[in-house]
Amino acid sequence: MSFREALDAALPPGRVADDPDVVAAYSRDQAAWAPVGRAAVLVRAADTDEVRRVVEVCAAHGVPIVPRGAGTGLSGGANAVDGCVVLALDGMNRILEIDEREQLAVVQPGVVNDDLRAAVAEHGLWYPPDPASSPWSTIGGNTATNAGGVCCVKYGVTRDYVLGLEAVTGRGEVVRLGRRTRKGVAGYDLAGLFVGSEGTLGVITEITVRLLPLGDRVQRTIVGGFDSLVDAGRAVAAVAASGLTPSALELVDRYCLKAVDDWKNMGLADVGDVLLLGRTDGKDEAEAAELQAVFDAAGATWSTRSTDAEEAEALFAARRLAYPALERLGPVLTEDVCVPRGLVPEMLGRIEAHAKAHDVHIANIAHAGDGNLHPLIIVPADDDAARARAQRAFEAILDDAIALGGTVTGEHGVGLLKMRGMRDELGEGVLAMHRAVKDALDPAGIFNPGKVIA
Amino acid sequence: MSFREALDAALPPGRVADDPDVVAAYSRDQAAWAPVGRAAVLVRAADTDEVRRVVEVCAAHGVPIVPRGAGTGLSGGANAVDGCVVLALDGMNRILEIDEREQLAVVQPGVVNDDLRAAVAEHGLWYPPDPASSPWSTIGGNTATNAGGVCCVKYGVTRDYVLGLEAVTGRGEVVRLGRRTRKGVAGYDLAGLFVGSEGTLGVITEITVRLLPLGDRVQRTIVGGFDSLVDAGRAVAAVAASGLTPSALELVDRYCLKAVDDWKNMGLADVGDVLLLGRTDGKDEAEAAELQAVFDAAGATWSTRSTDAEEAEALFAARRLAYPALERLGPVLTEDVCVPRGLVPEMLGRIEAHAKAHDVHIANIAHAGDGNLHPLIIVPADDDAARARAQRAFEAILDDAIALGGTVTGEHGVGLLKMRGMRDELGEGVLAMHRAVKDALDPAGIFNPGKVIA
Repeated sequence: MSFREALDAALPPGRVADDPDVVAAYSRDQAAWAPVGRAAVLVRAADTDEVRRVVEVCAAHGVPIVPRGAGTGLSGGANAVDGCVVLALDGMNRILEIDEREQLAVVQPGVVNDDLRAAVAEHGLWYPPDPASSPWSTIGGNTATNAGGVCCVKYGVTRDYVLGLEAVTGRGEVVRLGRRTRKGVAGYDLAGLFVGSEGTLGVITEITVRLLPLGDRVQRTIVGGFDSLVDAGRAVAAVAASGLTPSALELVDRYCLKAVDDWKNMGLADVGDVLLLGRTDGKDEAEAAELQAVFDAAGATWSTRSTDAEEAEALFAARRLAYPALERLGPVLTEDVCVPRGLVPEMLGRIEAHAKAHDVHIANIAHAGDGNLHPLIIVPADDDAARARAQRAFEAILDDAIALGGTVTGEHGVGLLKMRGMRDELGEGVLAMHRAVKDALDPAGIFNPGKVIA
Repeated sequence: MSFREALDAALPPGRVADDPDVVAAYSRDQAAWAPVGRAAVLVRAADTDEVRRVVEVCAAHGVPIVPRGAGTGLSGGANAVDGCVVLALDGMNRILEIDEREQLAVVQPGVVNDDLRAAVAEHGLWYPPDPASSPWSTIGGNTATNAGGVCCVKYGVTRDYVLGLEAVTGRGEVVRLGRRTRKGVAGYDLAGLFVGSEGTLGVITEITVRLLPLGDRVQRTIVGGFDSLVDAGRAVAAVAASGLTPSALELVDRYCLKAVDDWKNMGLADVGDVLLLGRTDGKDEAEAAELQAVFDAAGATWSTRSTDAEEAEALFAARRLAYPALERLGPVLTEDVCVPRGLVPEMLGRIEAHAKAHDVHIANIAHAGDGNLHPLIIVPADDDAARARAQRAFEAILDDAIALGGTVTGEHGVGLLKMRGMRDELGEGVLAMHRAVKDALDPAGIFNPGKVIA
């Protein structure tokens, strides 16, 4: 039996698609610069057992599997490789359980982040991780990439909320990793190992997440305008040194603000060169006042704070819209470096220098409070020379992040775009451990081959 | 060259000890019931390179290594195996760095938990994980076992504070895993994999931990007396259902209180059958009042709350002293099951039934707010029949924890005592993954063999 015959025989009718347009539509994520292979077929699985059967057939025939959720990734991690099955989990989108007393939810991988947040809010609960893609991205994809977001600076990343997983392993078995209890140390933390493994160790078919009480957080927004990236970076370092823990501390520069304004006409053109958007959610006002004072002392040209939710929402919305707004101007090469918080001004200065040295346009948004910077390198479409310069700037920025004791990826993952950078960051001994773990759990080498580790 | 000659040649004079009394003193942890093998020698390493050399020689000669910190473990994880090198890290006890701005510390594995807490407090910082062994246990041991403690119910476990590690691998290489930045997803979470791996994957030689601001938490203590374990358990479930997040929620029964009182004469004999000790550290009093109201509504026979630090400290001290106080009465077989919080009353009822059915004495302390229970099975010394009954009760309690969707170990680790329970909890597919990972990272099989996974 050919591979295709075996696949068709293993699944109910209608699961396998090979229409080239349909397959192509599922063959890439949002990383415009990452290479895309030609998939053999698309499978849209409806349940765990179908995933298991796909893995079984692929393992028997040595066919690669590229799992994907909503395809909102920014590193090419969900891009098809030649001859693969693109295994779409977006149809497995049921919330299976919300347990108020245990403060947890059990979901299928295709559940959209915002849908989970809305569903648990009705039970007085909160799922904190909030990547900018939350209206579209799925909990499965968030888990596979260990997604971050705006609230991480205070509340942590996806990893901090995943209690347990169901997954299909390289041996074609369905296993349950992790737990439902608050604590547990029976064996290795294999659930944690799967979080952020970008589909290279198995297919995640169910996720148990920890929730927090929704509570009555009073959101206060503190905005500061700065004359330069480095000035704003100094304020970030000053916040870190102050010991304050804002619930958000985002940076957005005038290129981003202008791109959003040109698109959405939000009246943001004159707010300044660089904005820091802070948020506090403690009970008293003092925290917000202190954060504003830190902005001022660090050289803000102006600052304001408010509890006006609408005004604040507009600014945070602008920050969220920055990426799609810039994408309208041309292919965006997205960085995701993360450095120690005190070195944010140094890193921002180096990024500006690289823009000049490589003659490319770099806009900046950042989860600044985490030290997680997203320089966005933009070049005109169809300008191959500019593209080559952008690629060199991209690699130079990765090198600088490593040199400053940081990492090449804070939250987007390695995918295809940061494999060289990761190799240099981790070094040969750690890479050998990665390969050993990968070979141990994926002996047939079928899970997302050629990504993360080659 | 014999193994011993190679070891002596690899290390400075004085590192290797073979005096039987000295070796025996380093050959076991605090798990009185776990078997102990006969070590070949003790090595007290002074730095990472010495650890690397020990690993190199042991790998070449196929000699097992049992790493240990202070030996305060309760599962036999640090017990010698026949012919092994006991590799003591207690001499590597320097705090290498405290970085206020990045809110992190870098320590050698032998640094005692309380020493780290005291040192970072001088910088206005806080290392939350607080196992009852904190005056003696080391950060290396805490990391190897993913230690918990009293504050976990609000602040999480060791895993939540370990950012990065240095370790010596099965290939005799020194590697750095994890990171110093707040976020990072470059490659697999191998640092997380090492946390809780109980010395079976390598030797941890340095730990980078995340710290919190010390802040000005106002501790409020809420005490409730209950007529029975099950009644107190119902109050725990009610707290879980309330959505409150106390910073501690401990249970201690009258057997423990009496044992402490007989030893320390603290005047605790008449406080009741079972106590719940709650703590809040939010800014306002309301949280404490709500917690007390939940105790009362759930059937407390009396309750009180106070900000009297001395009075509260005495009660929490009694809870910490319960284990050594009971050990004075005979060998203690310590359980560490963890169940969903709503099932704490059910589990406590089953524990009482097992005490009766197996005719053994079981005292109870618990990190009740986490669902993490420590039934302490006590039998007269030198009573083999009672010992056999205790062992059966121990296994029956593990089975019940699994049946209730819980785990056989919440924070103490698997070691030697819970290997059967862990096998039943995880199942064959997950165990196969454990063995594959173990073989991948410890190809010579030298790291703490015969523990956790056989």
